[in-house]
Amino acid sequence: MKIIIDAAGGDHAPLEVLKGAAEAAKEYGAQIALVGNEAEIRKASEKNGVPLTGLEIIHADRGFPMEADPTSVIKENIVTSMGVGLKKLADGECDAFVSAGSTGALLAGATFLVKRVKGVKRPVIGTTVPNGIGRYYFLVDSGANSECRPEMLMQFAVMGEVYASRIMGIESPRIGLVNIGSEDTKGTQLQLDAFALLKKSGLRFVGNVEARELPLGGCDVAVCDGFTGNVILKLSEGMALFFIKELKRMFLSGAGTKVAAMLMKGQLSEFKKACDYKELGGAPILGVQKPVIKAHGSSDAKAFKNAIRQAVVCCEKDIIGEIARGVAEQKAGAAEKGRPPRK
Amino acid sequence: MKIIIDAAGGDHAPLEVLKGAAEAAKEYGAQIALVGNEAEIRKASEKNGVPLTGLEIIHADRGFPMEADPTSVIKENIVTSMGVGLKKLADGECDAFVSAGSTGALLAGATFLVKRVKGVKRPVIGTTVPNGIGRYYFLVDSGANSECRPEMLMQFAVMGEVYASRIMGIESPRIGLVNIGSEDTKGTQLQLDAFALLKKSGLRFVGNVEARELPLGGCDVAVCDGFTGNVILKLSEGMALFFIKELKRMFLSGAGTKVAAMLMKGQLSEFKKACDYKELGGAPILGVQKPVIKAHGSSDAKAFKNAIRQAVVCCEKDIIGEIARGVAEQKAGAAEKGRPPRK
Repeated sequence: MKIIIDAAGGDHAPLEVLKGAAEAAKEYGAQIALVGNEAEIRKASEKNGVPLTGLEIIHADRGFPMEADPTSVIKENIVTSMGVGLKKLADGECDAFVSAGSTGALLAGATFLVKRVKGVKRPVIGTTVPNGIGRYYFLVDSGANSECRPEMLMQFAVMGEVYASRIMGIESPRIGLVNIGSEDTKGTQLQLDAFALLKKSGLRFVGNVEARELPLGGCDVAVCDGFTGNVILKLSEGMALFFIKELKRMFLSGAGTKVAAMLMKGQLSEFKKACDYKELGGAPILGVQKPVIKAHGSSDAKAFKNAIRQAVVCCEKDIIGEIARGVAEQKAGAAEKGRPPRK
Repeated sequence: MKIIIDAAGGDHAPLEVLKGAAEAAKEYGAQIALVGNEAEIRKASEKNGVPLTGLEIIHADRGFPMEADPTSVIKENIVTSMGVGLKKLADGECDAFVSAGSTGALLAGATFLVKRVKGVKRPVIGTTVPNGIGRYYFLVDSGANSECRPEMLMQFAVMGEVYASRIMGIESPRIGLVNIGSEDTKGTQLQLDAFALLKKSGLRFVGNVEARELPLGGCDVAVCDGFTGNVILKLSEGMALFFIKELKRMFLSGAGTKVAAMLMKGQLSEFKKACDYKELGGAPILGVQKPVIKAHGSSDAKAFKNAIRQAVVCCEKDIIGEIARGVAEQKAGAAEKGRPPRK
């Protein structure tokens, strides 16, 4: 198994990528290649004493610029680290690709270079979001498709179900449709039509789920358009930061509360860890023919290492094959149900 | 000044309404009338020893059923407490109306009985959401209009600005457009078009604001469609419950942490209070010709009392007049700017 990682993507590239990759190479036994400017990679390695033992280097002139038109990654697949990495993935020279670079470019490149799984309308970004200590729900779409059709949401549910059960280890995941009320008649036409599709999908559909229920464990896979999903993801992050900030302020407000902080040290660090995206790996782009993992832009070595682990697990568990089967079965099922009754 | 309150709306009607109204009558010096089934009101008053001193009773056969078609409140304005109350408000027999009943019905009744302020395209529900101890931002639309046009978002901003400055006391409120990125080019066509309108509005528009920034104080008025706003509102509630639950679990996990809980008691109760909707009053329906306040469905006496206080303040500060002026000025400004340049 070979995983390529974008050495020029993210706020802390290339050093943190190198560190994470070196640790992952040691720990997971997978072959790991760094794609990026070779001179820069070697310089960062020497300067910081991070040996490149066990890591392959694939040269690309430069990283993909964050501010560039995302679709330009498709043409620039011999110049930019992301383009080169995705091209090698498409050509079968590796098994998965990890990048903390531009989400839009990674999505465009994954869609048009690596290409979609047969039958998939639109690739989607899913994110694991904490809803307890060591517990998570899977949010699809968390930002790929701002505008969606009902059949797209249906497929997000199918792909999300596969990811939640195979990778997150949730048995028989409960699929919820994010909506502004729990009644069947709530939402815009998109939710109404998606509800009807999900109801007859054969998935374990638990109906409409209000955003209030998401952090309280209301469902295991939360299905929505990418605009709503992105709002949910970012508000969850912001609320976590808000609470941690307020908690800190409270603990530092007096002598007694400082003692309290010391007594709570273990619990607080466990909780902070549970809320920390770095522990979770990255966000998978689902619906393309090879595993592509989007690592958080501010990833450090640990986050990169975990994103690589996630790519390894996606390969081992054949997530692509499972998604292809899931999408095909759902399509066949829909055709079956859509067939007029025999006379 | 006379405020009518729906004695049959909410999970704890009529008793908690009675208690809240009785306290408000004592404290705010406004004339307060309860609308609902007179026999039931008197029974609840006697049984629980809550005197009706200073409270007028307006009879209506029954409350408006939560599960009924919201628009039926318009016809049923002589039978249901909400219908009767809104009709009296429309007829000038009182100055403001408060209800914890069906949001949809209250919105429909406010729109078609009380009627819109001249020039307002769609009434909107705004909600004050905490982003610190004693600090709040105003979220418009928090659930009235699931689907919006750009001009509607523009008006939500105008009405939100008036509410934030006049009622919440925020000087020169910063208006943000909720979006999935801070760059000007982000979002769907709705956000792109609303961005253009807001940019030339003369309001203090701070641009696109990601949901992550909302609890961190990124803007004072967060403008979005009612689907997105409802997701934001409910996720904020859910995240607060999630954190309080986790905090409780942490504090109860051992002998040391129980001591920590005691040391933190004051700070925790202050924080819990800051996150508590009961302190905040209700959500105003803006854009109709009289103040209408939607109290939370699970309001207790304190929440009702605060919602009445909010109605009083809306009357005192002439929120309706301010909104009418704001909307007219914005319209005139837009016409001015839309006028072809003189030759």
